[in-house]
Amino acid sequence: MSGTEQPKQYVLGIDMGGTNTKFGIVDARGNVLSQGGIKTSNPDINGYMEELKSGLNVLINGVGGIKKIKAIGAGCPNGNYYTGNIEFAPNLPWKGVVPFANMLSESFGVPAAITNDANAAAVGEMTYGAAKGMKDFIMITLGTGVGSGIVIDGKIVYGHDGFAGELGHTIIVRGEKGRVCGCGRKGCLETYTSATGVARTAREFLQDSDRPSVLRNLSLENISSKDVFDAAMQDDELAKDVFHITGKILGEAMADFVAFSAPEAIILFGGLTKAGDLILKPVVESMEENLLSIWKGKVKVIFSELKESDAAILGASALGWEL
Amino acid sequence: MSGTEQPKQYVLGIDMGGTNTKFGIVDARGNVLSQGGIKTSNPDINGYMEELKSGLNVLINGVGGIKKIKAIGAGCPNGNYYTGNIEFAPNLPWKGVVPFANMLSESFGVPAAITNDANAAAVGEMTYGAAKGMKDFIMITLGTGVGSGIVIDGKIVYGHDGFAGELGHTIIVRGEKGRVCGCGRKGCLETYTSATGVARTAREFLQDSDRPSVLRNLSLENISSKDVFDAAMQDDELAKDVFHITGKILGEAMADFVAFSAPEAIILFGGLTKAGDLILKPVVESMEENLLSIWKGKVKVIFSELKESDAAILGASALGWEL
Repeated sequence: MSGTEQPKQYVLGIDMGGTNTKFGIVDARGNVLSQGGIKTSNPDINGYMEELKSGLNVLINGVGGIKKIKAIGAGCPNGNYYTGNIEFAPNLPWKGVVPFANMLSESFGVPAAITNDANAAAVGEMTYGAAKGMKDFIMITLGTGVGSGIVIDGKIVYGHDGFAGELGHTIIVRGEKGRVCGCGRKGCLETYTSATGVARTAREFLQDSDRPSVLRNLSLENISSKDVFDAAMQDDELAKDVFHITGKILGEAMADFVAFSAPEAIILFGGLTKAGDLILKPVVESMEENLLSIWKGKVKVIFSELKESDAAILGASALGWEL
Repeated sequence: MSGTEQPKQYVLGIDMGGTNTKFGIVDARGNVLSQGGIKTSNPDINGYMEELKSGLNVLINGVGGIKKIKAIGAGCPNGNYYTGNIEFAPNLPWKGVVPFANMLSESFGVPAAITNDANAAAVGEMTYGAAKGMKDFIMITLGTGVGSGIVIDGKIVYGHDGFAGELGHTIIVRGEKGRVCGCGRKGCLETYTSATGVARTAREFLQDSDRPSVLRNLSLENISSKDVFDAAMQDDELAKDVFHITGKILGEAMADFVAFSAPEAIILFGGLTKAGDLILKPVVESMEENLLSIWKGKVKVIFSELKESDAAILGASALGWEL
């Protein structure tokens, strides 16, 4: 017997998105040793599992086989930590309830756990990133949609049913004026402060005024948040105003989130954070303006320190260590 | 030595309000064995402590002396569980920071802990009331103001600084239209759904229309939520509409709270719950209408099962057992 051999020294982290599934082998220090990916497009869940298995097996064999793997953790849209199921995910090809944790553990013969993608990112941030050492923080993911992972007393908040932390679907504009959301309701935060929301605001600004803007050189329907960012970097006033109002709305919402859980920090994550100060400055300004006085100047607002793809793989893998 | 003697079999629970301080001796089964009270009006905190000591000593001597008391728990406005201090409470006569837990434990020679009144009520409800056995619920107190105690995974959420759970100060009406709140901001939930908020809504309804109402027999400035309730019970349409809009606003806010922590139940507590179905029906209707579909029909909305004064004494005493 070799005294230095650690038979189960790695975990597998899976980051399932609506378009791509990324995965990696992670060691106990949070190093992603190897990575791979497949499309999340196979309409048959069993077909998808076969592709995933092939992809993962390449990595597993690369580190010495399944005997080296302690567990698998996955971050999945609408992933329920309690049940291990993906439940009615609108952006995935499989309808209804998919017992994904069970399928993983049966396929590989090791324990598996899942949670949603924003929770996985929050666990990654807490274990390896900007929230290291924090016990109370909120992670807000600003991508195609707006997601969130809430950490209280060092633990992800799953709630009674496993679906807590849907802050992208708190209502920020009430009544008929609110933007229609993919969830079927109106005025959700996600319709304003996601990448899609930024593009939507830009289109509204362009349609509702005659203000000059370099964005007018593009076709209205195809304007993306990246276009708005590029325009703002060229000092386009209209584009800068889009980020300003987006930050204002997010800051207002964040002030209410603070009243709920009094976090040490709110960590922003995802595509929209690439806009840097363009988004951060109005967010902080607006949050401070709207905070109850006991919290003014006390809640940090910071960007994630992890690469977007790494955060979810690392977070999912951290779930694996807990098994 | 007597085999049946339990030297520390009671705790002292204190419920400090802006006007009155109530206290009681509680046994391990949640029986309030004896109760007393003093005014919370002495402008000198040391004077107040003397009065409190006299009052408590009567009860303590009644059960066999301080050797029978395990600990003291207190629910206080702006009470900070972490520091044991009452910090900048706007409705108390003492300004700044009062090290109340320390003062209690020094005065009586037993451990003491404090929290805010809504948290104490939530602990009481979880230990002895409607939330018995629940691990995830939100208690909303509808009194002069609106307070809240949030329980996640069986524990009160204190947050990073001890002040989490100020749901009465989430913004429900944004911008200049929002009602001015005692906290200095505009549009807080508490300005609409407290007892004071109900009276304010009634006055607005009376001023802004010519609708007939028995409330017109009263002087506008003195209308209380009790008057509005009495009028509604006489089938006064305007008064019934006041409760309807109050419930609608509270339900909208509650749908957002559910998106945060996905509780099993929201428990309503305090003076306004005396209105019964007049408030409960519109609250549930509006919450259901505004919930994200995954939660529709799944979150219970119930009234507290504890007498108002008992809940806080019991909750505060439950803090004492934990010491």
